[in-house]
Amino acid sequence: MSILVVGSVAFDNITTPSGSVENILGGAATHFALAASFFTEVRVVAVVGDDFTAEHENVLKKRGIDTRGIERASGKTFRWGGRYTDNLNEAKTDFTELNVFEQFQPKIPKEYADTQFLFLANIHPSLQAAVRHEMDGVLLTGGDTMNFWINKTPRELAEMLKLVNVLLINDTEAKMIAHETNLPRAAQKVLALGPQALVIKHGEYGATIFFREGAFGIGRHPFRAPSLPIEEVKDPTGAGDSFAGGFMGYIASQGDINREVLKRALFYGGVMGSFTVERFGTERLQELTREEIDARFQVFRELTHLE
Amino acid sequence: MSILVVGSVAFDNITTPSGSVENILGGAATHFALAASFFTEVRVVAVVGDDFTAEHENVLKKRGIDTRGIERASGKTFRWGGRYTDNLNEAKTDFTELNVFEQFQPKIPKEYADTQFLFLANIHPSLQAAVRHEMDGVLLTGGDTMNFWINKTPRELAEMLKLVNVLLINDTEAKMIAHETNLPRAAQKVLALGPQALVIKHGEYGATIFFREGAFGIGRHPFRAPSLPIEEVKDPTGAGDSFAGGFMGYIASQGDINREVLKRALFYGGVMGSFTVERFGTERLQELTREEIDARFQVFRELTHLE
Repeated sequence: MSILVVGSVAFDNITTPSGSVENILGGAATHFALAASFFTEVRVVAVVGDDFTAEHENVLKKRGIDTRGIERASGKTFRWGGRYTDNLNEAKTDFTELNVFEQFQPKIPKEYADTQFLFLANIHPSLQAAVRHEMDGVLLTGGDTMNFWINKTPRELAEMLKLVNVLLINDTEAKMIAHETNLPRAAQKVLALGPQALVIKHGEYGATIFFREGAFGIGRHPFRAPSLPIEEVKDPTGAGDSFAGGFMGYIASQGDINREVLKRALFYGGVMGSFTVERFGTERLQELTREEIDARFQVFRELTHLE
Repeated sequence: MSILVVGSVAFDNITTPSGSVENILGGAATHFALAASFFTEVRVVAVVGDDFTAEHENVLKKRGIDTRGIERASGKTFRWGGRYTDNLNEAKTDFTELNVFEQFQPKIPKEYADTQFLFLANIHPSLQAAVRHEMDGVLLTGGDTMNFWINKTPRELAEMLKLVNVLLINDTEAKMIAHETNLPRAAQKVLALGPQALVIKHGEYGATIFFREGAFGIGRHPFRAPSLPIEEVKDPTGAGDSFAGGFMGYIASQGDINREVLKRALFYGGVMGSFTVERFGTERLQELTREEIDARFQVFRELTHLE
């Protein structure tokens, strides 16, 4: 089945202990779309500027991604610059130039109306809500957010949380939303705000999915997927969006939503995130194969599997 | 088979968001011994003062622990006071009174000479080394250390690391010893210093065991055990020592050391740590049953198990 992602396409300047790159293709929608494209048909709604060339678009097209929803506005594409020092879990932002992204009003092409799965990447929660209302026929909606919206637009975020089936955030964001430092308690508080399932990403430690009682008819026992310890993390940028792409993409590929599918989706999310960090930006995702993905899925499975 | 733990017995004052307790029985050897006692025969070498009563000793004896190695010195038992605020992973020390522990010279009773497994809890690395030399017939030695020894006695620690088969430490300690921020690389550097296996405890995220190439004839692929997300962590004190007790105790109960045993041991370590944090001090371990332990082992297994 098909999945639509709505979010940012960007050009990034990134410095990590492994090196520096400038003006490389990035953005949440880009990473999500590339990761999800290994599992299912992907459509993108985003905005780019004049500096987004056919070559950039081909990165997506080569993976079979439907780019008809990428709007071209006059001006420059969203640009972000950041650096990671020893703590690769946290970026220090050098600059943010919203450019054409500042006026982004997602426009869903008519051809996308039949999309079954929706992912609302990290944009203003009111835009996320508007897209969700427009796509009211979807089977399942996933969403992301960040500390900025949690602090600045709590009411709009609360509205958005009522509209997503699965929220994917990290430990810090979950604790911020819930005003609660204990993770499982924070998870239950977030679930009480709307989502049926909550995926909390723990960076190098993997991720946990928590369920609202009775959600998807599968009870509330959480499930964890470990992450592979990676010896060289070149660039963590986009790992979370790649995780979301693997997670949602796998679910969309299965159609049926049950506990086993969600468990495997959590593993595939971790797998996709682990590939992304091996190279800068989207480099690793661009050259990846489904065979490599499934081989690493087995490695992840073995990592915690008891006979 | 039997296991000997050498380490501290203490009285603790502990404050956490869940409450405060004073003068409760604690210490690394105590937590380790109680946790290991659910799996195998346990012996303890430690020192206590006049304030250590028959009632305290009975906490250990009731679990069948051999306390003949607990030396009674004149003076007060080691006392520690600490508090945890929102970050339950890190204690702030209020006071440390070494008391009789300051002059601790481990004396191994003759009756302990046939012990097959040894655990060197967190004491001065030179004392750990001396015990290991004295117990040179053991099949497997585990050890712990902490930031204080890593900083203050690096040479003595380096000697100790050559004498342990399995080192059990946390993320921060591993990175400190290795002068390396990437966890798998830090692990390989620590393994190059001596241990055949390294267990890195990640607190609420579980633990990973890394192997030196060819160690125990089982190759170097790491293995991870998740931890159960606990809704109420009352008191994290002793969780790491309980982890070690479950891990080493299970190995000692199996006799044979192979990959599957070490994997299960890692799960049992997490299980024991997760029980300890549910109540203050050793309260939970004192009333625990093997049936509860095995039930939680299954829950942990299910937590990451794919069909």
